[in-house]
Amino acid sequence: MNAFQFQNPTRIVFGEGSADQVGQLASQYGKTILLVYGSGSIKKTGLYDKTINYLQEAGITVHELPNIEPNPRLSTVNKGIDICRTNDVDFILAVGGGSVIDASKAIAAGVPYEGDVWDFFTNKAVIEKALPLGTVLTLAATGSEMNGNSVVTNWEENLKRAFGSPYTYPQFSILDPTLTYTVPRNHTVNGAVDIMSHVFEQYFSLTENTPLQERFCESILQTVIENVEIALEKPDDAAARANLMWCGTMALNGGLISVGMTNDWASHGIEHEVSAIYDIPHGAGLAVIFPNWMKYVYEERLDRFVQYAVRVWNINPEGKSDKEIALAGIQATRDFFSRIGAEAKLADFEIGSEKLDRMAEEAVRYGAIGSFKRLEKQDVRAILEMSL
Amino acid sequence: MNAFQFQNPTRIVFGEGSADQVGQLASQYGKTILLVYGSGSIKKTGLYDKTINYLQEAGITVHELPNIEPNPRLSTVNKGIDICRTNDVDFILAVGGGSVIDASKAIAAGVPYEGDVWDFFTNKAVIEKALPLGTVLTLAATGSEMNGNSVVTNWEENLKRAFGSPYTYPQFSILDPTLTYTVPRNHTVNGAVDIMSHVFEQYFSLTENTPLQERFCESILQTVIENVEIALEKPDDAAARANLMWCGTMALNGGLISVGMTNDWASHGIEHEVSAIYDIPHGAGLAVIFPNWMKYVYEERLDRFVQYAVRVWNINPEGKSDKEIALAGIQATRDFFSRIGAEAKLADFEIGSEKLDRMAEEAVRYGAIGSFKRLEKQDVRAILEMSL
Repeated sequence: MNAFQFQNPTRIVFGEGSADQVGQLASQYGKTILLVYGSGSIKKTGLYDKTINYLQEAGITVHELPNIEPNPRLSTVNKGIDICRTNDVDFILAVGGGSVIDASKAIAAGVPYEGDVWDFFTNKAVIEKALPLGTVLTLAATGSEMNGNSVVTNWEENLKRAFGSPYTYPQFSILDPTLTYTVPRNHTVNGAVDIMSHVFEQYFSLTENTPLQERFCESILQTVIENVEIALEKPDDAAARANLMWCGTMALNGGLISVGMTNDWASHGIEHEVSAIYDIPHGAGLAVIFPNWMKYVYEERLDRFVQYAVRVWNINPEGKSDKEIALAGIQATRDFFSRIGAEAKLADFEIGSEKLDRMAEEAVRYGAIGSFKRLEKQDVRAILEMSL
Repeated sequence: MNAFQFQNPTRIVFGEGSADQVGQLASQYGKTILLVYGSGSIKKTGLYDKTINYLQEAGITVHELPNIEPNPRLSTVNKGIDICRTNDVDFILAVGGGSVIDASKAIAAGVPYEGDVWDFFTNKAVIEKALPLGTVLTLAATGSEMNGNSVVTNWEENLKRAFGSPYTYPQFSILDPTLTYTVPRNHTVNGAVDIMSHVFEQYFSLTENTPLQERFCESILQTVIENVEIALEKPDDAAARANLMWCGTMALNGGLISVGMTNDWASHGIEHEVSAIYDIPHGAGLAVIFPNWMKYVYEERLDRFVQYAVRVWNINPEGKSDKEIALAGIQATRDFFSRIGAEAKLADFEIGSEKLDRMAEEAVRYGAIGSFKRLEKQDVRAILEMSL
């Protein structure tokens, strides 16, 4: 276990009906807020009307930034920053999934910053303050509701980049599992893949002596695996939806489940290059990339992949070599993703080999990526080729 | 899963050498501090001198409250409150284990309160503010380093009582596993029992649909079981000590591992009555009480005890009835406690049946205790009798 620091001040308000507390919670932080949301599904479900009502009842003035894209765009973030500055907004409320929350964090950091907010994504500047923000989560996936990370796409340059900051943890996050009953089937699928991928990035680590952290990771993986098919079968299954939502939050809650472990994040880096060009859903891209990353790197630390296969997928080790056990676990991952309906190949998105070089080049723009195995350009290219 | 709120703002600074940061950390909160510690083992190990040095280097004025008892006493807490008031102390630094931290929290809450601090323990008043505090943990056990709870004994009345408050979470807790290399063997044993008991109080719950929380609990139990004998065998085993320390913190970190679950805490209530009269170590008392509580209540929810036996103790369920499996898990618990050297009977502390009635009476002073099975006076008495 490495030395570490951990602090996560986000207040979680979890449970059916918790979204009714939004006015009372938001009014503790702001009088003039920017309400950030996506394509309008919250209008269809009535959540928009309810939220506006609660906010107005609490005496809050509401400005709005709708139409956040699934891969939220820098241009949209800049629009939000302008609205905040023009109207003296003092609090940001994100109502949606990871894209909405990530965009809100970028806006929160950008408002008090004199330079270009993109500087925070390109390591040209470090966030020193931000507007406070809160979230109402509508999708089990991102973990963004309980961490300080944000991923935004600069569409003009086809670059998808991330920042993480202690200043952009939400003040509160409302987690009402009933809000996820109505999400489209493929969002549930991609959300589950996203949650599992967040765990993979932390679990497949070269750090020694982290038995509790490994078990926490396995706990989340097992619970997602148990619950996602139930939620797909019966979208309003209260238990399955609550479990998936809490798994999503725990999978990336400031890194609690992997404190003292070196994380990898290469697969996310590769996926970001794919969706920066082709604008595919993040979780869908991860479902394609991750099993191939696993196949490419598993021999770096066979024992971890053996443990994964046995503990998470109940692979019977008898009569198998370690390599066979590990590969069976990877195959079980692939099979599970396919069984729940996630795509298996880039070809499923009509992505060919044309831009593999460009994507591999961009992935290592700041140097080799990953820590489980350091990936150079040719490694990234190989994983992308395996994914075609 | 029940609705819940969760927030835990404590900053954790974990790792070998992290105690060297104490001056820099404390100086962010105070200029005049009360240093609270125990019987003087921190003087023997050199931690006292190092800490004083770092604090003085940081320009901090230090007042001291030494000799906190293993079951910290109200009279000592009141002494600390007086020192703080007389000297305008603005920050409290606890260097020690659970007793030292719990006493420090009571002092922190008592200083700005005009009434008797004991009011907070008897539900006569609710904490509305407290001095900020920080901790340097020297024993893996309590979890008090990352929650707002405090347990104090009113020795004049033989009452041991607890409070929990959002105002008494430590601002920071320094967790340096190397500080636990020198703790006496029985403290390591009792600490491990304490950690496992904290998990039991949360894990044995009637709340349905909490698979992730249950797995988190099992993760801690398994990791403690794996590591405590290593630490007893080789007290300076860095890996085992780090794992035990992190398990202790996670076991009671504001309840993260059991969010949305109704907790029990009856065994703690019973043990508090024993140690309020006989002043035995908390962990030692729990090692006696808990297996008997398990035997008394397990049929309330057989499936949870079956799961416990199979997942935590690897009891082979084949050919056994559920009852047999459950009882095998309970026996495994008892055997483990005995194997690591924890006491099995109250008689081991020369405690007889004389005061069973008084203890049972006190345990239910405010009504029946526990939630897994509500325990009335006669139930508590029965468990105490089983423990003789």
